[in-house]
Amino acid sequence: MLKNRHLVRPEDFSVAEIDSVLDLGLQISANPHSYFNTCEGKILATLFYEPSTRTRLSFEAAMNRLGGRVIGFSDPGASSVSKGESLEDTITTVSNYVDIIAMRHPQSGAASQASKVCRLPFINAGDGGNQHPTQTLTDLLTIKANRGSLNNLTIGMCGDLKYGRTVHSLAKAMSRYAGIKFVFISPDELKMPQSVKDSIEGTEYVETDDLVAAMPGLDILYMTRIQRERFEDKTEYERLKDSYILDMEKMGAAKEDMMVLHPLPRVNEIATEVDSDPRAKYFEQAQYGMYVRMALIMKMLGL
Amino acid sequence: MLKNRHLVRPEDFSVAEIDSVLDLGLQISANPHSYFNTCEGKILATLFYEPSTRTRLSFEAAMNRLGGRVIGFSDPGASSVSKGESLEDTITTVSNYVDIIAMRHPQSGAASQASKVCRLPFINAGDGGNQHPTQTLTDLLTIKANRGSLNNLTIGMCGDLKYGRTVHSLAKAMSRYAGIKFVFISPDELKMPQSVKDSIEGTEYVETDDLVAAMPGLDILYMTRIQRERFEDKTEYERLKDSYILDMEKMGAAKEDMMVLHPLPRVNEIATEVDSDPRAKYFEQAQYGMYVRMALIMKMLGL
Amino acid sequence: MLKNRHLVRPEDFSVAEIDSVLDLGLQISANPHSYFNTCEGKILATLFYEPSTRTRLSFEAAMNRLGGRVIGFSDPGASSVSKGESLEDTITTVSNYVDIIAMRHPQSGAASQASKVCRLPFINAGDGGNQHPTQTLTDLLTIKANRGSLNNLTIGMCGDLKYGRTVHSLAKAMSRYAGIKFVFISPDELKMPQSVKDSIEGTEYVETDDLVAAMPGLDILYMTRIQRERFEDKTEYERLKDSYILDMEKMGAAKEDMMVLHPLPRVNEIATEVDSDPRAKYFEQAQYGMYVRMALIMKMLGL
Repeated sequence: MLKNRHLVRPEDFSVAEIDSVLDLGLQISANPHSYFNTCEGKILATLFYEPSTRTRLSFEAAMNRLGGRVIGFSDPGASSVSKGESLEDTITTVSNYVDIIAMRHPQSGAASQASKVCRLPFINAGDGGNQHPTQTLTDLLTIKANRGSLNNLTIGMCGDLKYGRTVHSLAKAMSRYAGIKFVFISPDELKMPQSVKDSIEGTEYVETDDLVAAMPGLDILYMTRIQRERFEDKTEYERLKDSYILDMEKMGAAKEDMMVLHPLPRVNEIATEVDSDPRAKYFEQAQYGMYVRMALIMKMLGL
Repeated sequence: MLKNRHLVRPEDFSVAEIDSVLDLGLQISANPHSYFNTCEGKILATLFYEPSTRTRLSFEAAMNRLGGRVIGFSDPGASSVSKGESLEDTITTVSNYVDIIAMRHPQSGAASQASKVCRLPFINAGDGGNQHPTQTLTDLLTIKANRGSLNNLTIGMCGDLKYGRTVHSLAKAMSRYAGIKFVFISPDELKMPQSVKDSIEGTEYVETDDLVAAMPGLDILYMTRIQRERFEDKTEYERLKDSYILDMEKMGAAKEDMMVLHPLPRVNEIATEVDSDPRAKYFEQAQYGMYVRMALIMKMLGL
Repeated sequence: MLKNRHLVRPEDFSVAEIDSVLDLGLQISANPHSYFNTCEGKILATLFYEPSTRTRLSFEAAMNRLGGRVIGFSDPGASSVSKGESLEDTITTVSNYVDIIAMRHPQSGAASQASKVCRLPFINAGDGGNQHPTQTLTDLLTIKANRGSLNNLTIGMCGDLKYGRTVHSLAKAMSRYAGIKFVFISPDELKMPQSVKDSIEGTEYVETDDLVAAMPGLDILYMTRIQRERFEDKTEYERLKDSYILDMEKMGAAKEDMMVLHPLPRVNEIATEVDSDPRAKYFEQAQYGMYVRMALIMKMLGL
């Protein structure tokens, strides 16, 4: 069903297709070592036009755990690929060497451009501020693994909702499930864009600037970082920043089974004291990121 | 026969030895997946003292497709190898880790220098403007796969024939076969050097600056790029450049079964409209590049 | 016994534990190809926060020779890992992808800091001027392989003994064996620090600035480089430097079975004419470095 398909945006896959990837991801997570040899003789190209070590290592671990091989490059400096050559020519050339391609690119739209000429399965590993669909699949698998379902959840998203690519994609992806309610928690400067709110049409949401007040109602809290440079008025940033830092005091107001998620890297928006709380799922999330990439590669190679 | 040999220049191999590599390359291209496991337990070092992503990925794909492993470095910045250490010491040290070495180096002569101390099979993956023998093998395999033979061909070489390392090597390599005729097509500033013309002694050639007029007689057209910086008189460059850009109009004058080759990357010297013409073989050429490297590694490891 | 342990400093392992690694290293060196498949399905992360190509390639060759896989990064520029993320978070994240971690870091103490949060076996591949325990294991294995034992040896250490991390570690490690005598050979400016001499308490040592005079008594000569920048008085450097360059003339005074070791890279402190002397063991040492890392990985993974 997903064989030889491209994944540029999460919406490229139907809900049923995403569920099939997540179900395979769950099976893999239960018994990861039994999938070794699945991709024997297959090669993944990781073409990273900007460094993103975490995402690259996750893809490379995934392919290696499947018994496949990886070739590629990890930053533009080490690459002569781009020397005057069009992105299309690079993709066509590399397609002669490998079986599946994952590409990271700093420009919005580059993934769509590359996928159009790619005769192999193609995965967008992030294109600028645009899309990062395997992060969304990671988030979905972590939720499903912990809650058993993606339905009937109240999901708080906190921090920089204006520029946060991951929360935009996750909101759209979760809005396709039943019984979802969003709580968008941010300072006024960094509210969820109208375009995203339009795209989740039909799903209930509320907006607030008060994390502590929102906490008791949440099944999931998805944290993102607020960056100083997003504020024109730096005194406003100084006034606000502590209200969006998650610590054990704020965790006191949360449900016993609330999940804290974060796309990582975390800087200071979650105090390290939270790490040992069983509700902190952000490092476990990194592991599900590897499992979901294993599932995705298998499905797209038709294995 | 080629076991434990070095490949620094194409001439290091006899015609019979080259033919044995090409024949194995053809067999591999017919059934690439059956060669997986051939190099199990073997390691290739890719020592790239300057970035050349295309060549590096081709070598790494080749070794992985054979079931072998790859270690190495891809640019001088990421490498501490050169910190005061002689090239000879680096080669001797790395020889303790691996089974075969492919080295790219920006200096002419570095490959010869390195090969002298190397007790493992050593492949020159390009040393400055000097030699790039696996590109030549790639060109030969692409021609042989398409024409069935390397004899009785009229080969046009077009563009920068003065500085073009690939056309120099290909001319020498093809001059060792029977019934070959060359048509050297270039502006006056960028004519084939006398030294190359001397080295193909005995093989017929003509020189012209007119691509369109030469076209109907060609079995193969090998395109290279003309770079603006090669011209002292930039107005001369502007006047000339379009005559050496291959487009569908010029292709109209070519034989039905002419092959267009190019070492890639292509910038604008071949219009993208040509890509979908069945005579365009330059992307297929990239695939033969991987197959011929697989054949070469097998032969030099004695497998 | 060593399963799931960390190796930050050589002293983290008991003498018996080190001997078990060395004994496995010897077995591997006798028949390296029979260990292929030992680590099938396992992944090593090589996290190199500063380039150290030789050490990285040695680890990667070791893991590949065991049939395992490697992911990682080779320099800070290509890595986004450090972008504001704590070292602890990076280690915790990567621990979700792999089975064992080797880390190189420019800061003293970074290895200890990282190992504290690491739930996988962790190997310090060098942290600043502090420790480099796999170099010490390499030195020990080379000595044991050549001499059959680590007891009853007179070991000369020559060159920069003040700043040389490798000689500090080796002195401490060898002082745990019986019948060891050290000869510390250096200019006055670069004498072995008192702290190291204190730490080898109970082991006999003499200090001298005369390499030639010391030579006849040595079973092992461990050479290191004297760097010009270590001297305040550059004329003093010029006056001294030749006395610490090992050449065939100085070798004339050495025992027939003396071993010359060097951690590499060598610049000019050993004349290349010495390379072909059978007593020169520094390139062989690089090979033992791979074998001892194979042994270490197997032991720490409990295989």
